[in-house]
Amino acid sequence: MALHAVTDTAGTAAVLDAYRVTKEPYYRAVADEVGLYEAAYSVRMPMMLKGPTGCGKTRFVEYIAWKLGKPLVTVACNEDMTASDLVGRFLLDASGTRWQDGPLTMAARFGGICYLDEVVEARQDTTVVIHSLTDARRILPLEKKGEIVEAHPDFQVVISYNPGYQSLMKDLKQSTKQRFGALDFNYPEHEVEAEIVVHESGVALDAAKKLVHIAEHARNLKGHGLDEGISTRMLIYAGSLISRGVAPLAACRVALVRPITDDLDMRDALDSAVTTYF
Amino acid sequence: MALHAVTDTAGTAAVLDAYRVTKEPYYRAVADEVGLYEAAYSVRMPMMLKGPTGCGKTRFVEYIAWKLGKPLVTVACNEDMTASDLVGRFLLDASGTRWQDGPLTMAARFGGICYLDEVVEARQDTTVVIHSLTDARRILPLEKKGEIVEAHPDFQVVISYNPGYQSLMKDLKQSTKQRFGALDFNYPEHEVEAEIVVHESGVALDAAKKLVHIAEHARNLKGHGLDEGISTRMLIYAGSLISRGVAPLAACRVALVRPITDDLDMRDALDSAVTTYF
Amino acid sequence: MALHAVTDTAGTAAVLDAYRVTKEPYYRAVADEVGLYEAAYSVRMPMMLKGPTGCGKTRFVEYIAWKLGKPLVTVACNEDMTASDLVGRFLLDASGTRWQDGPLTMAARFGGICYLDEVVEARQDTTVVIHSLTDARRILPLEKKGEIVEAHPDFQVVISYNPGYQSLMKDLKQSTKQRFGALDFNYPEHEVEAEIVVHESGVALDAAKKLVHIAEHARNLKGHGLDEGISTRMLIYAGSLISRGVAPLAACRVALVRPITDDLDMRDALDSAVTTYF
Amino acid sequence: MALHAVTDTAGTAAVLDAYRVTKEPYYRAVADEVGLYEAAYSVRMPMMLKGPTGCGKTRFVEYIAWKLGKPLVTVACNEDMTASDLVGRFLLDASGTRWQDGPLTMAARFGGICYLDEVVEARQDTTVVIHSLTDARRILPLEKKGEIVEAHPDFQVVISYNPGYQSLMKDLKQSTKQRFGALDFNYPEHEVEAEIVVHESGVALDAAKKLVHIAEHARNLKGHGLDEGISTRMLIYAGSLISRGVAPLAACRVALVRPITDDLDMRDALDSAVTTYF
Amino acid sequence: MALHAVTDTAGTAAVLDAYRVTKEPYYRAVADEVGLYEAAYSVRMPMMLKGPTGCGKTRFVEYIAWKLGKPLVTVACNEDMTASDLVGRFLLDASGTRWQDGPLTMAARFGGICYLDEVVEARQDTTVVIHSLTDARRILPLEKKGEIVEAHPDFQVVISYNPGYQSLMKDLKQSTKQRFGALDFNYPEHEVEAEIVVHESGVALDAAKKLVHIAEHARNLKGHGLDEGISTRMLIYAGSLISRGVAPLAACRVALVRPITDDLDMRDALDSAVTTYF
Amino acid sequence: MALHAVTDTAGTAAVLDAYRVTKEPYYRAVADEVGLYEAAYSVRMPMMLKGPTGCGKTRFVEYIAWKLGKPLVTVACNEDMTASDLVGRFLLDASGTRWQDGPLTMAARFGGICYLDEVVEARQDTTVVIHSLTDARRILPLEKKGEIVEAHPDFQVVISYNPGYQSLMKDLKQSTKQRFGALDFNYPEHEVEAEIVVHESGVALDAAKKLVHIAEHARNLKGHGLDEGISTRMLIYAGSLISRGVAPLAACRVALVRPITDDLDMRDALDSAVTTYF
Repeated sequence: MALHAVTDTAGTAAVLDAYRVTKEPYYRAVADEVGLYEAAYSVRMPMMLKGPTGCGKTRFVEYIAWKLGKPLVTVACNEDMTASDLVGRFLLDASGTRWQDGPLTMAARFGGICYLDEVVEARQDTTVVIHSLTDARRILPLEKKGEIVEAHPDFQVVISYNPGYQSLMKDLKQSTKQRFGALDFNYPEHEVEAEIVVHESGVALDAAKKLVHIAEHARNLKGHGLDEGISTRMLIYAGSLISRGVAPLAACRVALVRPITDDLDMRDALDSAVTTYF
Repeated sequence: MALHAVTDTAGTAAVLDAYRVTKEPYYRAVADEVGLYEAAYSVRMPMMLKGPTGCGKTRFVEYIAWKLGKPLVTVACNEDMTASDLVGRFLLDASGTRWQDGPLTMAARFGGICYLDEVVEARQDTTVVIHSLTDARRILPLEKKGEIVEAHPDFQVVISYNPGYQSLMKDLKQSTKQRFGALDFNYPEHEVEAEIVVHESGVALDAAKKLVHIAEHARNLKGHGLDEGISTRMLIYAGSLISRGVAPLAACRVALVRPITDDLDMRDALDSAVTTYF
Repeated sequence: MALHAVTDTAGTAAVLDAYRVTKEPYYRAVADEVGLYEAAYSVRMPMMLKGPTGCGKTRFVEYIAWKLGKPLVTVACNEDMTASDLVGRFLLDASGTRWQDGPLTMAARFGGICYLDEVVEARQDTTVVIHSLTDARRILPLEKKGEIVEAHPDFQVVISYNPGYQSLMKDLKQSTKQRFGALDFNYPEHEVEAEIVVHESGVALDAAKKLVHIAEHARNLKGHGLDEGISTRMLIYAGSLISRGVAPLAACRVALVRPITDDLDMRDALDSAVTTYF
Repeated sequence: MALHAVTDTAGTAAVLDAYRVTKEPYYRAVADEVGLYEAAYSVRMPMMLKGPTGCGKTRFVEYIAWKLGKPLVTVACNEDMTASDLVGRFLLDASGTRWQDGPLTMAARFGGICYLDEVVEARQDTTVVIHSLTDARRILPLEKKGEIVEAHPDFQVVISYNPGYQSLMKDLKQSTKQRFGALDFNYPEHEVEAEIVVHESGVALDAAKKLVHIAEHARNLKGHGLDEGISTRMLIYAGSLISRGVAPLAACRVALVRPITDDLDMRDALDSAVTTYF
Repeated sequence: MALHAVTDTAGTAAVLDAYRVTKEPYYRAVADEVGLYEAAYSVRMPMMLKGPTGCGKTRFVEYIAWKLGKPLVTVACNEDMTASDLVGRFLLDASGTRWQDGPLTMAARFGGICYLDEVVEARQDTTVVIHSLTDARRILPLEKKGEIVEAHPDFQVVISYNPGYQSLMKDLKQSTKQRFGALDFNYPEHEVEAEIVVHESGVALDAAKKLVHIAEHARNLKGHGLDEGISTRMLIYAGSLISRGVAPLAACRVALVRPITDDLDMRDALDSAVTTYF
Repeated sequence: MALHAVTDTAGTAAVLDAYRVTKEPYYRAVADEVGLYEAAYSVRMPMMLKGPTGCGKTRFVEYIAWKLGKPLVTVACNEDMTASDLVGRFLLDASGTRWQDGPLTMAARFGGICYLDEVVEARQDTTVVIHSLTDARRILPLEKKGEIVEAHPDFQVVISYNPGYQSLMKDLKQSTKQRFGALDFNYPEHEVEAEIVVHESGVALDAAKKLVHIAEHARNLKGHGLDEGISTRMLIYAGSLISRGVAPLAACRVALVRPITDDLDMRDALDSAVTTYF
């Protein structure tokens, strides 16, 4: 099957109803990512979302699933995950063995967006089961069952990927990477991020801006003593505490500084950044 | 779901009754940790308790669960723990397979505080199953069962973490750390610690103070021949022996010195510290 | 059995009907590969297809299966794959255990082409189960079942292999390699590749040629900062986006550049190559 | 629960009757170890017995269990031991699955002394299952069964530990060590050891003293060509052979020298020590 | 039992009938290997066949089995093979568990030649299960079943072994090696090899000789850029293609050069050797 | 239980009848090993037989079992062997699970000699299950079954051990070694070995002596290019071939030289030693 446009069909089975995103998730677009994703989905191009932790990749996928009106089947990938965890397995029943579709098969069969979160965590070789679903074949052979599932026209695969984790041991294979289009994500611009923090935490705009300043300070320390900067998610945590009446210094200590470093010098540096703004 | 305040509900199921802390645990607050935790719980922020072994982290969690009136589901993490041990599995029954919730699912479904003790011991990648419960989604997909559990409003995750164990091999991933607020714990101040030892062991205050002096001496040797200092728990052990009539020198030898080191020089140093005070 | 010509028989069982390629796949031959494969198949010589990812090996196998009118049983190899996954296993049934053929056994028994995709991913030692099927014996002993399957006259094994992945850790054993004839695959010539991109993506020829120029630029960087060049498949992705109205620069960013590198300098180099042509 | 004295109860279940030590084991006390242990047991302090192999740790535990009149559940730890081996598991029965307590659970539930022999052999992380039983909580959560076992008042944990095996790879974690009081064991004094050898082997006192001299000679070579000295147990073996009529030189060769070294020079050194005394 | 001559019995059970070699396999003896093997078999000496891949070891075993009129049970050894795969296991049945002999047990019980192909691939320690069958005891204890199988008088073990694979990690233990007599195999002499190629592929003698020349050229490069030379089996492949009308240069490229090396210089060297002869 | 003499009882169960050695095995004593073993058995001292492969350790154990009239339960140890393989396990039956004793339990329960062949091959930590059977307790706790087996008075453990295999990775622990008396084994004296070869192979004495000369030559090369010398077992193989009419040079090549080395120089050295004598 070539990558021409696919006509949506109405045949999505009720089995995926639990996976529908029923309420519009709050998502603040930062560039043309929504339009690009919609174009990619229109040709069912598999997509890869790259970016640091806590910058909004998962929220974006939920928003897109809501906007496209498609069920979203999320799989948190981990090193122990086997191909069977994705594809399905036989279960023992009162009347013998019974096949149970895994999340990937379910999405492929009934037409959902299958989101493999933190896909680098999965064993490189487990990920090969998505290969036949992410090229022109769009099929999934269930070897143990002796069935070939042809993907539903609505089906798409999307994966998330944190380039900062890339290492010799854990990276996607080229033969996997080349099956995906890619969108970069990063922390939002200052004003946008403050707006998100206000919306999500209920804190005042003024405090939100201070929190963003602290985060920007910490992000500059990434690679210079910090493994990772302070994420938007952490700012929302801090904002939530402040809006519940916790003193800003304590809120920042609990939500921003203590979680990311145990190094005493680095803690001092971050704590003094906090006192600069509050 | 944003991190706004959550209204407590009365719907906690009887299934968690065995997990309620029915008697007030003795806990001697050392700073503002109780208030900060209550604020964090009010927005259901996942929490991480950092500190050395035996300084009171577990007791604090029991106290908080009692104070908040919520069931406490504790999981002692270990390297062999699989995602299924947390989430649940199918068991074979007279009438076929039957799903059994794991401790995490049980707490999420019925509204308990789920305490993952020594979380660094678990395989990094097993811990990713808590990700969807510790961000705004607050859901737990049971992939094997094809169910999505939406967390009960009372549900919260709390983990303990000993920074001294941190190593290249065993540390939490940034994408996990950034989902938690953090509180630091340490051994209590001299007077407070003596008071705790008296309360817990029944030893006289005078002897308790001597025990604390010995502990402080040993804690200064951490990193200079000792892997870890003498904990409050060990002082309570020593105090208990003394209050049962064991000679202080023998009690300290058995409960404080012999357990933590086999190095002869270090034992001499600690033994002479004991004889200084008793 | 010597390697003389094998007479095709009509006895292929219905069990493989789901594995037939019913529509002619689009395949643009680049040299004498179709004729050579047909000669190899006429003596049932096992074949190995070598070449980089996304250059058309899988499409070629589908085309050949269609042309020869034989069922195609594809197995995506991975490191967790055991011999049982290829050969079969006993399943528990209401009336005890029941044998289920694996994909290799099914193809051998009923006469299909068994395609082991990315065979180097499989454990070296798992691949030895194909040895008795790929020499003159053409038998498959099912040790657990106590049966010796004699291969159907139509049966053939074909494997794919990316020499770029070869390493000390992962390579086929000589005793495996020497059981196969080998065909090299590579990216098609400029004109041919543009023609393929037009056919598969619906983009205009002019834009397709520009895409091929960009790919050729990137392929020259392989080994100089890129692990792998841009594949034909990726060009089809980019073309599909352009033909859906996405701006060429954005389409190339999403489909060609972002997926294959996170290195900022390399991204700049590739982005400027894109702007040179569009 | 604080570490105050625990009142013994009569409710120990019959399930542990097979684990009672019914005959007084021969144990020759060398210092105040019996009294210290009784004090520790009176507050149910978990105990750790440290010392080289074959010096009497296991015999001491049997003696204590007999003296206290408590059942003794011994577990020989090994690297393959899982948490389930200690805690219990579901077994498949004619009528479905049935829970079977492991040795730790059985001892905790019905009030025995649980002795984990050579605990360093167990995986560090398997040992964390004893944590909640060895602090003030004295509970054992059976996560798979959804039950929390509160330890019987008679329950106590005792572990043995050979510091000579300590290595970077295999040592107890500080968070485990700090839950235990510790008693040191070593080979007995000359006269005491000879008395033990006479009692256990039936050999004459004169020969027993010669055997102890040989052992002392070998123990001085520990770390200078011998990994471990000759233990009391080996002397009893040699004495037994002599009392059965075997020539002393042959008895020492078989029971003392050949088992501990294959090094020819070391064998000569030990053999000549034997001829010095016999 | 001493190694005296064993009288053949007629009692071979029908269970091994499927393992009989019913048609004389083509085998061209190169030295006294057939006579030596027959003498070894007459005293049931276990045999080890050493030599490079594709030189005829497997064919020799088939020929011998045919000549001796004994069933041949072949096991392709691999690293995942457990002792149970050789010896047998309990299977779950409608009426409980049922024992199933593995291939080694089957051959031992009913009197077949058991051929362990590429035995170095098996875990060193799995191979110890053959020890009691390959010394004077000629028994196989089925520990799980509590049965001791006495080997049928016709039973013999033969293993193949490629010394080129020998490494520190993978080699047979001396205690295994010393249980076998050994025969060396290598590529046949020029004339003999050409004769074999003619017989097996149907190609003309003239072309067969050219193919042998090319192979000899490549075998001299072993260790100088090639891991292994071109085997007789590969020459038969090339001959088969030529006899089906494929041009000799293309046939050699597909069947001789491409399979064994991806190194461009080495390919050029081999290709020019091909053009020298054709 | 002290190591005093144990009175034999007649109660050995019929379950071990299959394990009785009914015919006197040929064993040629070389020193006082038979008497020493009998003395050791009279006090049930666990024994360790040390020596190179093929020198008669296994034959000695069979002879002793015959002489003492006790059943012999042999276990070929390997790295995959679990504690359950020694001790026993629950099997699934028509009426639920049923316990099956492992070989160690069977010997302990009913009074056999349990011979653990090549015990270093077993995982160090699996071997700890024999500890409680090899000290004064003489019990075997079946933790999974909740039973404590008291060893039958006839029960004894004997292990074999090749010191040449000793390495940092694979050696018995001191706490295991110290539970055993030890007997050294080596190749017999010249005259004795020739006598054994004559008896076992049926070859003439003259040829047997030549074979022993060749073996002595090879044994001097151990450590100088050979991992292990030529064993008595190999000489019997060679003698058997010669007595079946095979030419001595060919017999020695097949049975003595080819099996132990692939090194060409070493083969030449051994071959010329053969021609010196024949």
